[in-house]
Amino acid sequence: MRYRESGVDIDKANQATRAIARVVGKTWGPAVLSQIGHFGGLFEVPADYRRPVLVSSMDGVGTKLLVAGAARRYDTVGQDLVNHCVNDILVQGARPLFFLDYVAAGALDPAMVASLVEGLATACHQNGCALIGGETAEMPGLYQKDDFDLAGTIVGVVERDAIIDGSGITPGDVIFALPSNGLHTNGYSLARRVVFEVAHLKIDSHVEELGSTLGEELLRVHRSYLPAVTAIETHAHVKGLAHITGGGILENLPRILPKGCAAHITRGTWPVLPIFELIARAGDVVEGEMYRVFNMGAGMLVVVSAQDAARMPATADGLHVHRVGEIVKGDGAVSLL
Amino acid sequence: MRYRESGVDIDKANQATRAIARVVGKTWGPAVLSQIGHFGGLFEVPADYRRPVLVSSMDGVGTKLLVAGAARRYDTVGQDLVNHCVNDILVQGARPLFFLDYVAAGALDPAMVASLVEGLATACHQNGCALIGGETAEMPGLYQKDDFDLAGTIVGVVERDAIIDGSGITPGDVIFALPSNGLHTNGYSLARRVVFEVAHLKIDSHVEELGSTLGEELLRVHRSYLPAVTAIETHAHVKGLAHITGGGILENLPRILPKGCAAHITRGTWPVLPIFELIARAGDVVEGEMYRVFNMGAGMLVVVSAQDAARMPATADGLHVHRVGEIVKGDGAVSLL
Repeated sequence: MRYRESGVDIDKANQATRAIARVVGKTWGPAVLSQIGHFGGLFEVPADYRRPVLVSSMDGVGTKLLVAGAARRYDTVGQDLVNHCVNDILVQGARPLFFLDYVAAGALDPAMVASLVEGLATACHQNGCALIGGETAEMPGLYQKDDFDLAGTIVGVVERDAIIDGSGITPGDVIFALPSNGLHTNGYSLARRVVFEVAHLKIDSHVEELGSTLGEELLRVHRSYLPAVTAIETHAHVKGLAHITGGGILENLPRILPKGCAAHITRGTWPVLPIFELIARAGDVVEGEMYRVFNMGAGMLVVVSAQDAARMPATADGLHVHRVGEIVKGDGAVSLL
Repeated sequence: MRYRESGVDIDKANQATRAIARVVGKTWGPAVLSQIGHFGGLFEVPADYRRPVLVSSMDGVGTKLLVAGAARRYDTVGQDLVNHCVNDILVQGARPLFFLDYVAAGALDPAMVASLVEGLATACHQNGCALIGGETAEMPGLYQKDDFDLAGTIVGVVERDAIIDGSGITPGDVIFALPSNGLHTNGYSLARRVVFEVAHLKIDSHVEELGSTLGEELLRVHRSYLPAVTAIETHAHVKGLAHITGGGILENLPRILPKGCAAHITRGTWPVLPIFELIARAGDVVEGEMYRVFNMGAGMLVVVSAQDAARMPATADGLHVHRVGEIVKGDGAVSLL
């Protein structure tokens, strides 16, 4: 018996590895000391930090992968994953250093793996992040033949005294929202059930109110807020940032509110995208649940002082900056007005 | 419609998160600045490095997870994953700093997740590594109901001029092996096919030549070589380390051989464990294939100069140190003598 007969094809895995090596190289700067083929990725800590603190986050793409599979389009989910992770460490003030990915499948398709990794490399390059390593695993029996999963870890760095943690937030501070461009990477289980099973739409259905096919809408790439937040920081001192992911505004904003603070968010102060209106209507999903599951058009919240609020630009890196609410005295709750 | 009806139970996910918070705390030292609930994990770079280089690795557990599932025993695979990753960065000279995990399942079982994370935390604690973050994802439709996957990323640190990369290896150097205690984390697709489908053994079959049940044998925890290698470094200058994972000695040792070097490995100089003899015999697997898939009892290879070879201890951290071969002139190949 040979290994291939047990469902694992090492040659195919090596072929996928070579495809990966070609695209990741362009994300490497001089801090990367490793070569593909070594056991671990090597990255030299930047010398220009006095007390560097590493900020790391691991995440997956969730069931957005099933949409990619249905559309047979694998070059966007890698971008979703990287941008999601970039935002997750950005909210603590960190800039990305490097990224590692995990691709697992029942049967490795080298072309699909290459496409996934190309998406990862594209977004890493855009965010100034080195795609330094990863694991590609073929696991017959654990994954069904066409099933696959994609996860990744980002490591970034922030100066210890520049960590953003929301601790300086006080009542009277102002909350701004940066727009999302769709579902980003959250709520796909509910969204898929509503659009495919309740509304009986197809992945290639053109939907008038979306101005695109359903597949195009659902695969829009999760936005990286690194350039917009960097632009805002030249105008205002950012006291807190909340990346609006699973749990929505209602569960993510409280994570940065210090004791004695609550938040008022005024609906109608930013555009709720048509896809959310479609899901709420077609699925008969109540508003409270929508705000607990989806970003509702607000992908990143930015908290600044009232004084700095007056200096906030109307746009940052091309994105509209919406004034959406304020910090009030309270017990950490978020109220939708 | 509520989110729960789409198969995702946020309350259950939060319950799992709380169980995780209880066990990970004990792995945290003063370098960990974050609290569970923040978006990213914060770890201060140790101040006692002149030019710190971060060494990172991401890996999964492979289809050893299916054995854990069949045995309904979830507290060991987390240890496998951490120890595997510790070894992967150890071979470049790095000591672990922190670890992040990814748990994905079709339906979250909080007790199972707690057990997985307990294994991760146990091994992190043993290796002086902080379990700093992770992602627990419930993905109905992407994973079958009882299926799950576990992956993780380790980040460690090494002084730039102490990186081990094998570049100083020359003909005449001596190769030592540290014993594995079983399959570790590789070759499970082939092993499972042979023992379950060809030999018709059951997970709870007591196997005389193994001295244990098949489940116990297959779930032995992947050994961390951090203490043994640290002990060896007090006796000898380590020129190269090869962690014997997928691809076996034949594919992993060449990764550290510089141009002009090859390796001779003499069979019979270390004990090949009974499980490998059972698999080869029951599956009619030829020897070359066995050495390409399994560690064959040698979990870590250590290369030192001939002079230092005389100073190598007989045991390191309780493990026998076997002299198994030497570096010769050649083109990077490994020959089994």
